[in-house]
Amino acid sequence: MSSSFGRLFVVTTFGESHGAGVGVVLDGMPPGIAVEEGAIQRELDRRRPGQSALTTQRQEGDRVEILSGIFEGVTLGTPIAMLVRNTDARSKDYDALRDVFRPGHADYSTFAKYGVRDHRGGGRSSGRETIGRVAAGALAKIALATVGVRIVGGTVQVKDAKAARRDWDEVEKNPVRCPDAEAAARMADVIQKARDDKDSVGGVVEVVASGVPAGWGDPTMSKLDALLGLAMLSIPATKGVEIGGGFDMAELHGSQTNDVYDGERFLTNFSGGIAGGISNGADVVVRVAVRPATSIGKTQTAAKQGGGTTTIEIQGRHDPCICPRVVPVAESMMALTLADVWLRQRALRGRER
Amino acid sequence: MSSSFGRLFVVTTFGESHGAGVGVVLDGMPPGIAVEEGAIQRELDRRRPGQSALTTQRQEGDRVEILSGIFEGVTLGTPIAMLVRNTDARSKDYDALRDVFRPGHADYSTFAKYGVRDHRGGGRSSGRETIGRVAAGALAKIALATVGVRIVGGTVQVKDAKAARRDWDEVEKNPVRCPDAEAAARMADVIQKARDDKDSVGGVVEVVASGVPAGWGDPTMSKLDALLGLAMLSIPATKGVEIGGGFDMAELHGSQTNDVYDGERFLTNFSGGIAGGISNGADVVVRVAVRPATSIGKTQTAAKQGGGTTTIEIQGRHDPCICPRVVPVAESMMALTLADVWLRQRALRGRER
Amino acid sequence: MSSSFGRLFVVTTFGESHGAGVGVVLDGMPPGIAVEEGAIQRELDRRRPGQSALTTQRQEGDRVEILSGIFEGVTLGTPIAMLVRNTDARSKDYDALRDVFRPGHADYSTFAKYGVRDHRGGGRSSGRETIGRVAAGALAKIALATVGVRIVGGTVQVKDAKAARRDWDEVEKNPVRCPDAEAAARMADVIQKARDDKDSVGGVVEVVASGVPAGWGDPTMSKLDALLGLAMLSIPATKGVEIGGGFDMAELHGSQTNDVYDGERFLTNFSGGIAGGISNGADVVVRVAVRPATSIGKTQTAAKQGGGTTTIEIQGRHDPCICPRVVPVAESMMALTLADVWLRQRALRGRER
Amino acid sequence: MSSSFGRLFVVTTFGESHGAGVGVVLDGMPPGIAVEEGAIQRELDRRRPGQSALTTQRQEGDRVEILSGIFEGVTLGTPIAMLVRNTDARSKDYDALRDVFRPGHADYSTFAKYGVRDHRGGGRSSGRETIGRVAAGALAKIALATVGVRIVGGTVQVKDAKAARRDWDEVEKNPVRCPDAEAAARMADVIQKARDDKDSVGGVVEVVASGVPAGWGDPTMSKLDALLGLAMLSIPATKGVEIGGGFDMAELHGSQTNDVYDGERFLTNFSGGIAGGISNGADVVVRVAVRPATSIGKTQTAAKQGGGTTTIEIQGRHDPCICPRVVPVAESMMALTLADVWLRQRALRGRER
Repeated sequence: MSSSFGRLFVVTTFGESHGAGVGVVLDGMPPGIAVEEGAIQRELDRRRPGQSALTTQRQEGDRVEILSGIFEGVTLGTPIAMLVRNTDARSKDYDALRDVFRPGHADYSTFAKYGVRDHRGGGRSSGRETIGRVAAGALAKIALATVGVRIVGGTVQVKDAKAARRDWDEVEKNPVRCPDAEAAARMADVIQKARDDKDSVGGVVEVVASGVPAGWGDPTMSKLDALLGLAMLSIPATKGVEIGGGFDMAELHGSQTNDVYDGERFLTNFSGGIAGGISNGADVVVRVAVRPATSIGKTQTAAKQGGGTTTIEIQGRHDPCICPRVVPVAESMMALTLADVWLRQRALRGRER
Repeated sequence: MSSSFGRLFVVTTFGESHGAGVGVVLDGMPPGIAVEEGAIQRELDRRRPGQSALTTQRQEGDRVEILSGIFEGVTLGTPIAMLVRNTDARSKDYDALRDVFRPGHADYSTFAKYGVRDHRGGGRSSGRETIGRVAAGALAKIALATVGVRIVGGTVQVKDAKAARRDWDEVEKNPVRCPDAEAAARMADVIQKARDDKDSVGGVVEVVASGVPAGWGDPTMSKLDALLGLAMLSIPATKGVEIGGGFDMAELHGSQTNDVYDGERFLTNFSGGIAGGISNGADVVVRVAVRPATSIGKTQTAAKQGGGTTTIEIQGRHDPCICPRVVPVAESMMALTLADVWLRQRALRGRER
Repeated sequence: MSSSFGRLFVVTTFGESHGAGVGVVLDGMPPGIAVEEGAIQRELDRRRPGQSALTTQRQEGDRVEILSGIFEGVTLGTPIAMLVRNTDARSKDYDALRDVFRPGHADYSTFAKYGVRDHRGGGRSSGRETIGRVAAGALAKIALATVGVRIVGGTVQVKDAKAARRDWDEVEKNPVRCPDAEAAARMADVIQKARDDKDSVGGVVEVVASGVPAGWGDPTMSKLDALLGLAMLSIPATKGVEIGGGFDMAELHGSQTNDVYDGERFLTNFSGGIAGGISNGADVVVRVAVRPATSIGKTQTAAKQGGGTTTIEIQGRHDPCICPRVVPVAESMMALTLADVWLRQRALRGRER
Repeated sequence: MSSSFGRLFVVTTFGESHGAGVGVVLDGMPPGIAVEEGAIQRELDRRRPGQSALTTQRQEGDRVEILSGIFEGVTLGTPIAMLVRNTDARSKDYDALRDVFRPGHADYSTFAKYGVRDHRGGGRSSGRETIGRVAAGALAKIALATVGVRIVGGTVQVKDAKAARRDWDEVEKNPVRCPDAEAAARMADVIQKARDDKDSVGGVVEVVASGVPAGWGDPTMSKLDALLGLAMLSIPATKGVEIGGGFDMAELHGSQTNDVYDGERFLTNFSGGIAGGISNGADVVVRVAVRPATSIGKTQTAAKQGGGTTTIEIQGRHDPCICPRVVPVAESMMALTLADVWLRQRALRGRER
């Protein structure tokens, strides 16, 4: 259950970063939806390592195989299992780390939890686990498109470089996946400098869903805000999430942040499309704080499994800034969240066929 | 299910703000734990309206009745149901709002969701729903105390007034519940001014859990960070949450934010006590962005249920800043989250009796 | 969670038999459904003790109070909490049993599980827990009636007296709740004789749902058969359940039990309205084996909490055959099960409003 | 969610009978348990077709591949995904059935549910789906063995041939998997005769768990009886389940069926090891009614997808009695159920490491 997300549109991921493969089972995809399989692969390619000089050079083809649930190009309504084999898993790179807890990583907490661990590259904590999320997210996007919902996302901040525009068509044109071409160039410089310094850098990713009708979500424990908080903070390396006006609203007054509806539309969107936990018809807007990647080449002090400390310089092949690769994952988690609340709303007030 | 929180330590709230009462069922409290019933009432008193000039003047005694699950002062391990009757529900105050959607409120989205609503004071979206959370949270705190976990919280920002210290013993000594006496005075001024202006103001609440052992939480979909995101963003009026370094880390480097363990303790806590979704033994630190209360006395434009707009001035009795009352709720949600992951860890690696 | 039933139409019961009261929270009732509150009380009255000479003489009014979720006679779509106070709880009757484990009862297993127990009358294991199920079941019946589903039930066997007919209108005309007037008289004799012997007797209850459309349920882990198995075997004192042809089919051939559809209807119903876990449009037929009540006046050997044995003669006021009172409970569990799969089917293929 | 079983020991199956493969994800296996992979294959071999003249001649190697969750022969505590490729899927055999609903099969109800279906061999309703259950069940057995629980099962009735003994060591020595060698021979004759008649025959399977300590299970909605009811009736072709004395108790008195504890052990086991929903330390005994296989060679009337009827003679390769192959599946479902309640009990009262 701890590897699952959703209640009706249920996603369960599996696989360690250096095992046989990683994958996902999506249980709850509605039947009768046409799926072009290339759409899934394209989303995975956005998440894949080795796309540009700004990301890790680990070379994984990340070819997805659909094992079930789709027949003659149409969803059956049964579980859709998808598998991606691991191919470039240089396990040897990790031999020196067998009894070392890397700073900032989950090595120590994982060992404390399980009493045993796969020391090779983070196991379940690896970013490779998100492959299953993106594959399932691609299907969630397809399902949501049938009811007019569209999801976009991009990197809107890297260190002090911030996007001033939201030109979503720009996102795939620059390696940072920034919706502002000018800011993208500055972001790339910041990232390149971090790489040169054997260091990493943090940032912020924004995801926006348009076309969400009013009425999705719940008023108390399962507020749409809350589900998005769950979704986004389940992404590796995220340490903050905000909806609409977010933390900025801490400094404002109600007379400024109460979104006024003029009879046709909301004049502002401090609520981020969600009022009292339920969508209000405006764009659903979420931002995620991404910490600097924890794998860095600089010399660091590290605790040892048996006690005591050592120093390490993490070699491997790592991302100096993971924001560009977080973008498709965050979009996927938004899609999985919305697909779930959509189906729940349908249960509540849908009409029988 | 949408009114429930947790998987093993399961809390389900019920009740509208102007119905017969509000309450909670807690299913999953371990058996054999001594409960002093006054401890529950004391937590409810912290949440109760009318505590100071800074909060709403609605006068509710909020006396809790325990209906089940505790026998001769000890938990039975069976569901603990608790009920608080509504007494000062001036439903008449809301007659004028029967067909008006108040700006920033959940009125419109609720109607879009259900097609029907209790227009009196927000129904389930009312802050009164959190009574059940606080009552259950009090029990979660008692349960967690048996394993050495302690939870504190306070208001750390109101508009531009920010707490510079974390003196948790100070919290109950000032009406803002700020852990910094000097900042508390400034915050009180800001809030009083907002009230005078018939306006409201936002802020930030911080909650800290100490004594959490390493190993609680999960590495993927149910990261402890994610569960806290779910918990905190399910609190009314919250629009952001961050763990440890949070959004500040977007501007930093990995060489700064990788928490180094020197063999005895972590030298920093950017991870907020959670690495890879699993507790690492350091304090669990969470901050929540609280939007300005949406009920304000200023004249506002409001949409009408049948179409068109009108203007309203919300009379009622409302909080100009809800941070002081969010504090016990946020502590409760932290407690509910930790109680749940504690029991799940016990399932994973506990020893049989 | 262990006190909850359902995934979308979620029922959570609470309360010990000799505590303040028993009740239920129903989360998932669709909004906008008119509820005549008397309908709930009438179902509770069917379950209530003291209805005839054949049932326990414990006198409980069992008056239900609706605490939330219904406003101006219509469901809000929010949790519906209902409470019944315990009034005739003669706790003193149980003082002698404080350290005795009654044979057949849950006393010993409960103590083994929790390490603590409320010795007064079974606590959660008491039949009083089913009050919440019946109250929620009444609402499930109302909800299902809006889509044409109707549920009936009756006692079809007591010892060797078996109903030969299914005249459901007869059920409320005899104290055994048997759909066959002639058999009812024989059953009453058997029960009376058991009472005279300070003994109890078992039986079989049958429940039938008509109007269930084809397509409800799931093909694998959540087969409708399986959910009904869960539902029925969660009723106190039940030790068997069968669907349609049930155990009789162990002695038959496929050429006999394959229900043939002649283009208009099924010629037989060995499947009990469920094929491959999914309803097929025929009546859903379930039978439940009810063990003889475990509380009997005869002298019995009983284990003691501290070790060793003693002899007891259970005084109290008990049912010599609980079938008549299981009928409304079994109907309720059928209704809760069907309401849940109905909403899940609506999530899968419903159309948006 | 509809393809999942369990709350803490969670099993999710996937795969259609004639797709790429079938498999399972087990999320919740405790870490640090040594797993001999051959043990999983051996259980699958028991379920595999083509084992004897009494089962279908479909030839599937059913070789399992473990994709994740086991590292260096030890469980990691992470999801264990297992995959079995379909190899002998003669889809062509089913071309004639594209628009025919086979009697007794799930064809019609599946189509009614989804509006689309994989007509080749039952899709999800096929017995092949149980491969995932058996693979996960093998792991559940290994986990339970670490706390002394052992599960056995066998065919105890085929038509009028009934086992008089429970010699569990006998089970794997005869093709019927009957714990009574003499009855096994008679059962084999009955099955062979059904095959010769192009017909099928039903039966009863019994499963027994020994070593279950008192205290597992729950008193209300999640009674251990109820969970076993869910488990067993989720197995294809089952239409009844009983615990301990089961339906026989309908004809008995309380003075006969109240299991007396003499200070050392229960003198009878009418409760089937479960009192009030909670294990009492005696053997947990469950019997399952298995309907005659629905695929038979005899000429049958069948409804057509577009309306009207036709006649069919199902060729394919089918089991005349599926009891022998249900045995490992029923054992697996017992194991999955017990593993789940074991972990839940550990959550409730386990001690921290």
